[in-house]
Amino acid sequence: MNKKIDVFDSTLRDGAQGEGISFSVEDKIKIVKALDRLGVSYIEAGNPGSNPKDLEFFEKIKNVELSNSKIVAFGSTRRRNITVEEDKNIKSLVNAGVDTVSIFGKSWDFHVTDIIHTTLDENLKMISETILYFKNLGKEVIFDAEHFFDGYKNNKGYAMKALEAAASAGADCIALCDTNGGCFPDEIYDITKFVCEKFSSVSIGIHCHNDCGMAVANTVMAVAAGADSVQGTFTGFGERCGNTALSTVIANLQVKRDYLCIPEENVENLTHTARKISEIANFKLSDIMPFVGKCAFAHKGGMHIDGVSKAPHSFEHIDPSVVGNERKFLTSEVAGRSTILSMIRKIVPDIEKNSPETDLVIKKLKDFEYNGYQFEGAEGSLELLIRKTLGKYKPFFELVNLKTIGEQPYSEGGSASAVIKVIVDDKTEITAAEGDGPVNALDTALRKALEVFYPQLSDVHLTDYKVRVLDSKTATASKVRVLIESSDGNDNWSTVGVSNDIIEASWLALVDSIEYKLIKDIEFKFKTYL
Amino acid sequence: MNKKIDVFDSTLRDGAQGEGISFSVEDKIKIVKALDRLGVSYIEAGNPGSNPKDLEFFEKIKNVELSNSKIVAFGSTRRRNITVEEDKNIKSLVNAGVDTVSIFGKSWDFHVTDIIHTTLDENLKMISETILYFKNLGKEVIFDAEHFFDGYKNNKGYAMKALEAAASAGADCIALCDTNGGCFPDEIYDITKFVCEKFSSVSIGIHCHNDCGMAVANTVMAVAAGADSVQGTFTGFGERCGNTALSTVIANLQVKRDYLCIPEENVENLTHTARKISEIANFKLSDIMPFVGKCAFAHKGGMHIDGVSKAPHSFEHIDPSVVGNERKFLTSEVAGRSTILSMIRKIVPDIEKNSPETDLVIKKLKDFEYNGYQFEGAEGSLELLIRKTLGKYKPFFELVNLKTIGEQPYSEGGSASAVIKVIVDDKTEITAAEGDGPVNALDTALRKALEVFYPQLSDVHLTDYKVRVLDSKTATASKVRVLIESSDGNDNWSTVGVSNDIIEASWLALVDSIEYKLIKDIEFKFKTYL
Repeated sequence: MNKKIDVFDSTLRDGAQGEGISFSVEDKIKIVKALDRLGVSYIEAGNPGSNPKDLEFFEKIKNVELSNSKIVAFGSTRRRNITVEEDKNIKSLVNAGVDTVSIFGKSWDFHVTDIIHTTLDENLKMISETILYFKNLGKEVIFDAEHFFDGYKNNKGYAMKALEAAASAGADCIALCDTNGGCFPDEIYDITKFVCEKFSSVSIGIHCHNDCGMAVANTVMAVAAGADSVQGTFTGFGERCGNTALSTVIANLQVKRDYLCIPEENVENLTHTARKISEIANFKLSDIMPFVGKCAFAHKGGMHIDGVSKAPHSFEHIDPSVVGNERKFLTSEVAGRSTILSMIRKIVPDIEKNSPETDLVIKKLKDFEYNGYQFEGAEGSLELLIRKTLGKYKPFFELVNLKTIGEQPYSEGGSASAVIKVIVDDKTEITAAEGDGPVNALDTALRKALEVFYPQLSDVHLTDYKVRVLDSKTATASKVRVLIESSDGNDNWSTVGVSNDIIEASWLALVDSIEYKLIKDIEFKFKTYL
Repeated sequence: MNKKIDVFDSTLRDGAQGEGISFSVEDKIKIVKALDRLGVSYIEAGNPGSNPKDLEFFEKIKNVELSNSKIVAFGSTRRRNITVEEDKNIKSLVNAGVDTVSIFGKSWDFHVTDIIHTTLDENLKMISETILYFKNLGKEVIFDAEHFFDGYKNNKGYAMKALEAAASAGADCIALCDTNGGCFPDEIYDITKFVCEKFSSVSIGIHCHNDCGMAVANTVMAVAAGADSVQGTFTGFGERCGNTALSTVIANLQVKRDYLCIPEENVENLTHTARKISEIANFKLSDIMPFVGKCAFAHKGGMHIDGVSKAPHSFEHIDPSVVGNERKFLTSEVAGRSTILSMIRKIVPDIEKNSPETDLVIKKLKDFEYNGYQFEGAEGSLELLIRKTLGKYKPFFELVNLKTIGEQPYSEGGSASAVIKVIVDDKTEITAAEGDGPVNALDTALRKALEVFYPQLSDVHLTDYKVRVLDSKTATASKVRVLIESSDGNDNWSTVGVSNDIIEASWLALVDSIEYKLIKDIEFKFKTYL
């Protein structure tokens, strides 16, 4: 039987300290559901004392049935020189109404004397009285020993006394925190080992920050030293350089070291869960994120591709499908025939692997990629290209002409305007719009013209716009690739356009976005009425 | 005396295996200069065998004088069953004409038999004969033992034999590679220690990949075990999940563990160098990158801000200025005062560090950075901004108005045209030009109009054009940053512009480029006639 490690996810609490991160109550509930489905043990969801809005979340989450995870509310030990009952933050914590609380307290003597300005003795009382209070209420209590490693290095005796105060008061778990993220794996290992030997009857947790780029390694080493609870945020975001990325830790411990972190059958959902949480948090998951990133198993070097084709483990430390990710060959040519085939079969289900149609699509894709297109991350355009190549496409409108005008000094309404004339079913529509630059003006004008014929386009909004200059050496005449992401509230899709003219590249991606939406709706209707 | 660690940077070779990374010869030379200035020991700059274009780089770099770094060409051991002299890739490596080569060879028995399909004995000969060949040519040879750790775990005896073959042939350094990135810090430590004890007279290097998110920790642990050379890429990009980030490793080893990786006085240039290299590579540096990221010392939590205000080390593991970064309370930030001061002194040599003028420039820079500007890699615009702020600037022309027109279907001569009207010394010039898109048309028209007054502008050509979308959520109305590089044959300079309108952003960068050129020529004349 593999050793069980409790995964304690703080995406919603410590993760919310990252720059640019802010969660609505609905976001939080979605993330809770995703983490529960994956099977983490604890979800630290907020700090009701410092953030009164969190109480709304704790109220709502009571009605959400969870299968695997316990919801945790986070707060501090009582403040100095008052009773636990008098502390308002403690009251908020009780009001959160959860069965498990995590209480952080000071274990670094310098922080006690110089930051919260109290005596070393009073701090020990703050720890034990607060924990005792929650234990008497029947709660499970996790004690976060803030700055434990710095404290240990500065005054080992006192740092250990802080842990003893927590343990004696009945803490169920003591988490050792490298709050400043400055520790090295060997220190973490030695100190955690010492603590685990002293407190063999309490669960010992580890909470690291990534300021030295070693949070994952520090966490893994703490587990090797005996810790049985790992804290972090799912994809690693958090204050400063972020927290331990739990998606990486889970894969390391469970896939590579045979610990049991989440139900075994859920390991293949790691990639999906990481991408989903990033999506909800609106925080781009790094393409090179270990295990779950888009490029985590992407091979570019010729010898690597050759090696992986002969034997995957020649250049892959694990099988990507184990964590729900995919192998990728980054060549100037397109992804493997079987990948393309599965895309084609979405449109023409009974097509053969070696049919002339498959060859035709692959040839077309190669031509497009040669010209700077990239369909990874532009699945909408890929589907349209396959449809066009196989004759499964009918245009939704015809462009008669368009004109964009940019001006300085600005006239009112934006720096540019666009005029567009389209034909749909023999009916002509001409319209104009202003915007921030010609691309924005064109985008607005195109939707305006087409909404007359296709009202459902009013649901579509662009959620992302990216520009990459492909051969920057020809300077302002460079070829550019524009990637657009669109949403209609139900679905998201991405489209791409390439040209030496940024307006044309944007136009191509915009048109694909709109056509993809219209096709998608027709297919949906077709399926619904079948 | 602190132990010296050789920093071996492979940004230009292994880093080029990352998705979306591709370097021009000019990019490579710029990165070499930045790394040399920082003081890394080795710069692995290309693989002339697999990439014939690299020979152009090796030719050009001979004329660049370096102060700290040796240029390294990378290649394989000879292929099986031929002599070293018959191997074309080896010939290319010789033709690169550098004093130091790194040669990779197999040390994992499975790779020998199943991937390159030769015998274990022949592989040992391939290693020793190749190294001997280069030693006889008087070269310094670094042997990269590819997949060493996997090899060691699979067949320790054979992996060690591969190292022995390299050592006996005279390799100056043996680098142990975790090519698949699957190893854990404790394994790396134990195995490296074993190797260092066996080969006490050869330098031992460590080359890690980040597939488990532990490349930095693995590298640090290998150094703790006795390795004295660290390989990686400066900001961590590379195949799959990337290589060891050397900027992080240097800071960890030198700032926190007292090793000597680069000249001590250059440590404060770590942040600047990381940002510059990212900018040249057009690969966004992660905001939460340890030590050098924009948010590496950004505090958001109220208690953290309070703590840091009382005593910085309460929530900071090092002083950010040591690595040239800055504390941030989630506001924008600029490069260190001393960096800015040295820029100002180029224009006003006798200015004081704490003068109101310095404060004014820093305030101005903060405003611009807050609005999306980044002056790392755009020194031309930075100089102009300082001049404008300090009143050391006189405009060279006045824009009356400009108009750009884009059309589809295309008319002859390009997809867009631009009309521009300028005034120089009370004389008005109006002209027009066509181009690939409005930016290209505008670029051409502007030069055409100004060359009437400033004929020296005919020497200027743009050598690079990059676009980065800053807040892609507002889609086609997103703010973009345009970076332009220009050359007049003698000098190169970079300028930047930011706007929600890509034409305006390009215009701002174009104008800076032209003004920088004109100021530069005047200064030069002034110095010449003095």
